[in-house]
Amino acid sequence: MGPNRYDWKRLEKFATAVFVRAGVSTREAETVARSLVHADLRGVHSHGLARMPVYVERILAGLIDVKEAPVVLNKAGATAIVDGKNCLGAVVGEAALQTAMEIAGKNGTGMVGVRCSNHFGACSYYAEQAIQKGMILFVMSNAPQTMAPTGGLRPFFGSNPIAAGIPTGSAPPFLLDMATTVAARGKIALAAKRGEAIPRGWAIDEQGEDTTEPERALRGALLPIGGAKGYGIAMFVDILCGLLTGAGYGPSVHSLYDNDQHPQNVGHFFWVLRVESFMPLPLFKQRMDEYIQLIKAEPRAAGREEILIPGEMEWRTAKERRASGVTLPEKVASELSALGSRLGIELEDARLQ
Amino acid sequence: MGPNRYDWKRLEKFATAVFVRAGVSTREAETVARSLVHADLRGVHSHGLARMPVYVERILAGLIDVKEAPVVLNKAGATAIVDGKNCLGAVVGEAALQTAMEIAGKNGTGMVGVRCSNHFGACSYYAEQAIQKGMILFVMSNAPQTMAPTGGLRPFFGSNPIAAGIPTGSAPPFLLDMATTVAARGKIALAAKRGEAIPRGWAIDEQGEDTTEPERALRGALLPIGGAKGYGIAMFVDILCGLLTGAGYGPSVHSLYDNDQHPQNVGHFFWVLRVESFMPLPLFKQRMDEYIQLIKAEPRAAGREEILIPGEMEWRTAKERRASGVTLPEKVASELSALGSRLGIELEDARLQ
Repeated sequence: MGPNRYDWKRLEKFATAVFVRAGVSTREAETVARSLVHADLRGVHSHGLARMPVYVERILAGLIDVKEAPVVLNKAGATAIVDGKNCLGAVVGEAALQTAMEIAGKNGTGMVGVRCSNHFGACSYYAEQAIQKGMILFVMSNAPQTMAPTGGLRPFFGSNPIAAGIPTGSAPPFLLDMATTVAARGKIALAAKRGEAIPRGWAIDEQGEDTTEPERALRGALLPIGGAKGYGIAMFVDILCGLLTGAGYGPSVHSLYDNDQHPQNVGHFFWVLRVESFMPLPLFKQRMDEYIQLIKAEPRAAGREEILIPGEMEWRTAKERRASGVTLPEKVASELSALGSRLGIELEDARLQ
Repeated sequence: MGPNRYDWKRLEKFATAVFVRAGVSTREAETVARSLVHADLRGVHSHGLARMPVYVERILAGLIDVKEAPVVLNKAGATAIVDGKNCLGAVVGEAALQTAMEIAGKNGTGMVGVRCSNHFGACSYYAEQAIQKGMILFVMSNAPQTMAPTGGLRPFFGSNPIAAGIPTGSAPPFLLDMATTVAARGKIALAAKRGEAIPRGWAIDEQGEDTTEPERALRGALLPIGGAKGYGIAMFVDILCGLLTGAGYGPSVHSLYDNDQHPQNVGHFFWVLRVESFMPLPLFKQRMDEYIQLIKAEPRAAGREEILIPGEMEWRTAKERRASGVTLPEKVASELSALGSRLGIELEDARLQ
């Protein structure tokens, strides 16, 4: 075992204990811990425990409210609004997901808009839970400004992710989880640090020109996927998550980092569909398995070992890491270790020998 | 007035009369005519009257059933399935939209899956109707194979469009209507005819290599927007429209053209959201107007006159064309004229002097 290899269940315990020390209730701490470790298991470290230090910092600064609880409002028919009351994002997301699934259980579908939330972790965390209940989830979130509208110069929208989860039988579930930007801002920051060029199409500089220089890109804005198409999708996400719910939108979604003034006021939108309202779940699962086999049997481009289904790679990584441990990036491990020490919790206890 | 300028209301009458001669009921003929002229008004000729000859050809060959009517099945809670009974696509789409809006009127949201349909015209036709009722529409359709999965060599998915319409106050409505491929196959065919190169990123050749040669692209496959992200979106659309409804999917969605064997069995998915379930409609519309103003006020890239909202350009074109007439491409006008003559209906009657 490598030096930064950790047992995932003990990582959850570590994170739970840290959040509890920061004033979070045990149940809510467990939810957030599960959401973060879920991302590290899938190899998506950008949405994993790497976020814990800033979550804790914001709790301690009073910018996230751990004494409140999300409230369900306007529940009628197959829709509802969740007011997140500025609680931890994953706590708010979990409440919204459960509300949407409960509504879908009765009505075949459930539509829940969410306001006054925070960074809610990886969308895939919610998708996996819906899948386990035989439901289809489509979830969106807005985010702090990074992306320019087509024709614009500076960030207006966030990376505004969309994600979808669909149950399967024996095949890995369909789990698409994507930003509507071409690349993450973190990747550009990393290229800048390493002095490397970035590919064309990722970002524009302050003059609106496509740039390969990461420093110029960081002063400019990220580009959406598919040009004006991605801009349209990001705006759709912002409208549903922000304008329709009363959350922030565009400039009024505040940053998770370097922001000691404002709650984030992130908005989300959960859309759940009960498969059984359309066809028997076992039949649907069988059809999904056959469909996936059909796609995988397609002739492949040179050098391609196989055709992967959305989320399949991360699903394999999680399976392997549950068995053999989660390797955390060096920097993340040392930050977590320092945070734990500060609050009297030892990261070492989660390390694999 | 140019020689191919037509009055849009008289074009609708022309198209209605042609469909009626082909055996379609007046009411259904009017629906399809409206859907096609809607696209021509917006300048989207690829989904306008240019499709009428092949629709009529398939009706006369018995490949579209004009004696049947769509049937609503499995209606429960906020979901339903529409069996299109192989009727004209716009007739099926209209039935599904009305069903979804009726359900949303009662439940706040309505989710309608559709099977056994045909090419249903421009998604924007349905979005405009939902917008007029103060509702948000998200609509998807699968389509005959043109797009390769990431890592694959040949077409498996269709261009699988998604569209969204959102009401506004005085600003043009938000109306995103997009294929999940980077470019339309028709554009590549046109480049081939003109002997022009196509941009990188549009398509792969038979070996899976990105190509700028349109002939190679036509033997290869179209690429999705955003690489694996667009592949994931196209697959999501195919699953909801096809696997969940009992429509065709992947290879079992049949072509509109050069196919005298199979009904198309296209699938659609209509998702309607009633704004009033979340906030008062006048307030939402006012918020949308302010939001759009905010985006339009953003600093612009060099050479950009303004920042456009999705669908704004087409909205302006439609406004102008309603007033001054619709200019049809020469080839479309001559095909329509020939089709009309065959069935005893004069396109000339719709021409502006």
